Amino acid sequence: MKHVKSAKCIRCGREHAAVPGVTTCESCGGILDIIYDYDWIKTQVTKEALSDRIEHSMWRYHEFLPVEGTGNFPQLRVGWSPFYEEPRLAAFLGVDTMYIKDDGINPTASLKDRASAMAVAKAAEAGVSTIACSSTGNAASSLAGNAAAAGFETYIFVPERAPRGKVSQLMMFGAHVISVQGTYEDTFRLSAEAIDHWGWYNRNAAINPYLMEGKKTVSFEIAEQLGWKMTDYVAVSVGDGCTISGVWKGLKDLYAAGFIDKLPRLISVQAEGCCPINRAIAEDREWYPMEENTLADSIAVGVPRNPDKALRAIRESNGIVVNVSDQEILEAMRILGNQCGVFAEPAGATGTAGVKKAVERQLIPKGASVVSIVTGNGLKDTTNAIKAAGEPLSLKPDMELLLRAFEQ
Amino acid sequence: MKHVKSAKCIRCGREHAAVPGVTTCESCGGILDIIYDYDWIKTQVTKEALSDRIEHSMWRYHEFLPVEGTGNFPQLRVGWSPFYEEPRLAAFLGVDTMYIKDDGINPTASLKDRASAMAVAKAAEAGVSTIACSSTGNAASSLAGNAAAAGFETYIFVPERAPRGKVSQLMMFGAHVISVQGTYEDTFRLSAEAIDHWGWYNRNAAINPYLMEGKKTVSFEIAEQLGWKMTDYVAVSVGDGCTISGVWKGLKDLYAAGFIDKLPRLISVQAEGCCPINRAIAEDREWYPMEENTLADSIAVGVPRNPDKALRAIRESNGIVVNVSDQEILEAMRILGNQCGVFAEPAGATGTAGVKKAVERQLIPKGASVVSIVTGNGLKDTTNAIKAAGEPLSLKPDMELLLRAFEQ
Repeated sequence: MKHVKSAKCIRCGREHAAVPGVTTCESCGGILDIIYDYDWIKTQVTKEALSDRIEHSMWRYHEFLPVEGTGNFPQLRVGWSPFYEEPRLAAFLGVDTMYIKDDGINPTASLKDRASAMAVAKAAEAGVSTIACSSTGNAASSLAGNAAAAGFETYIFVPERAPRGKVSQLMMFGAHVISVQGTYEDTFRLSAEAIDHWGWYNRNAAINPYLMEGKKTVSFEIAEQLGWKMTDYVAVSVGDGCTISGVWKGLKDLYAAGFIDKLPRLISVQAEGCCPINRAIAEDREWYPMEENTLADSIAVGVPRNPDKALRAIRESNGIVVNVSDQEILEAMRILGNQCGVFAEPAGATGTAGVKKAVERQLIPKGASVVSIVTGNGLKDTTNAIKAAGEPLSLKPDMELLLRAFEQ
Repeated sequence: MKHVKSAKCIRCGREHAAVPGVTTCESCGGILDIIYDYDWIKTQVTKEALSDRIEHSMWRYHEFLPVEGTGNFPQLRVGWSPFYEEPRLAAFLGVDTMYIKDDGINPTASLKDRASAMAVAKAAEAGVSTIACSSTGNAASSLAGNAAAAGFETYIFVPERAPRGKVSQLMMFGAHVISVQGTYEDTFRLSAEAIDHWGWYNRNAAINPYLMEGKKTVSFEIAEQLGWKMTDYVAVSVGDGCTISGVWKGLKDLYAAGFIDKLPRLISVQAEGCCPINRAIAEDREWYPMEENTLADSIAVGVPRNPDKALRAIRESNGIVVNVSDQEILEAMRILGNQCGVFAEPAGATGTAGVKKAVERQLIPKGASVVSIVTGNGLKDTTNAIKAAGEPLSLKPDMELLLRAFEQ
């Protein structure tokens, strides 16, 4: 691949060949970053050329991705999710301009589809037909779906607290699902042992440096959907740390290639009950493990797998960290539903909850422009949706009863 | 609107002015059809012009829709859902070519978003700020979401059997939800009384002739995604009868405008436990009510609201009727998930179940090309998804246990 230079350790700087099966640094075990030749990329694609493309998916940006050519991308249509300007939400939150990027509109209903589509592409390059991962749910369902469509077998390890909606997706996509009676950490460890033992392709985020390269396409789309004029801030919920790292990588790619002339500041939003990454930033020290006390299961990660890249992304962007309560997350779900017609899962609404809190605490100015990324669809977790929204009025089919109920 | 001639009764032929609030025939109460001037439309849009359009939503085809101009369409991005060629599925089903149109990938996760977006557009034209409907679920959630994004108030009547996933969507979108302790028929009746009483805009399918005009855009997309070369058959699940009527209207529009040169035959698929429309075709007589015995709640309609147009569509297309059991529906859900990475709700998989049965019964030939429309997302009904897919393997985080479990 002419446009990919290497896979470089973010800890010790050692460079590795960017082969499909590359995982972590051979020297120090650090996480790898895919390094591109932006000068070469600039000779291959321009903003104008992009606007003429028929392809409306993440593969629209293939020159910026660690793949060869334009041919055999996985079949499911991942990416090019809706992007909405939301003046009523902006007024409600007290910012000047507010945009929602709804990544719940993806084949398996979360942003993780971007990473999983990339995993399938790289597994195909590696000549491996079985892919495995551990996940709180979305990485898993996205892998299962994208792999099924491409004819790959999957082994998926989920913690037992994963919502049934997500588990039902896995089962339906024909994955071999192992529900682990333990924490996410226990689940991750068992999956790592099993992957070692059977030699499956590893789709565990952080371990596999290509996944973030898939995720970064959300930033490419945001930039193009904004006409390449970036907002002041981009807000995103943070669990493992891979999504915010991907968002940042995409922005830096575009900046390095001259497609955007300003880098927004990141707003890293975690749940109060599980915020090891934000705590490390706030206390300006190393991160350390934390309990997983939040109903936002997708970001309930007490031992993040990608803290280094996430912390780097927040710091490089001169970012802001905000922690929100479960009540604030449920409120953000209602706001997104009521005002935008966007149904987010708890982790999907967490970024927006963070914007509200950041404005209230005057961490961001009133005149700011903000993109908030909705990372997953509310249909994945209807139990919490009902908790947020309440129960309907229930009555017998009788107009008199209805009139009486409305009077009250 | 220069391209819309009238709203014509399909029973007595009386023509009405196509005003935004038009409902059923003033003379006989029959259902109305929107009549277009195809000669005029042909002067406004060509296949070539369409292929250059940036708009990737149902409004891409606005010249064929009962709306004025290109400006203020509702905000949610409805339509331009994924379209997949599925060679493995074709081989499995025993047809030559098989396509899946995945309309579960829509803002509120069903094809009904197309009708609801149209309802919002027409309510805005009518100057009404409150919209109401009754629904087994998808019409309701799509109305609630599309209306919320556009700033409209909604009153929604659902039968108490509606799955909680669908109800949670409504509540989240800020709809006033009335859960009716009765059948769909009871629910519909109460909503009609309330709409009369309060003067809300009526989004009840069949009653409102514009909704089908939204739904027909699924056929426009299928045709364009096929390069305007239609397949031999289009399969779709049937409940109320509005969707299959919309599919047929879209195909006839394209044929009348010379965009396609062949009309496919429809495959009308109903659940064995609730198939009044297919029964009327099979017995070549009037339809009559039926019990609602199927787990596919979205098509569990014993008293269809749009039987006339549905029956006409099936007959005009020289269509095929197939009824499938709940077990066959669950099997089709598994097949779509395993082989296509498409997660369908029961009614969404019913069309594909019908294709399988039509091949087995030699109702369609082996060399056929078929499009099957997935009308709704499986995340809307995870209870039945789990029923179809089974439970995962559950164990403690211990490699020895895993090895032992896999050996068995």
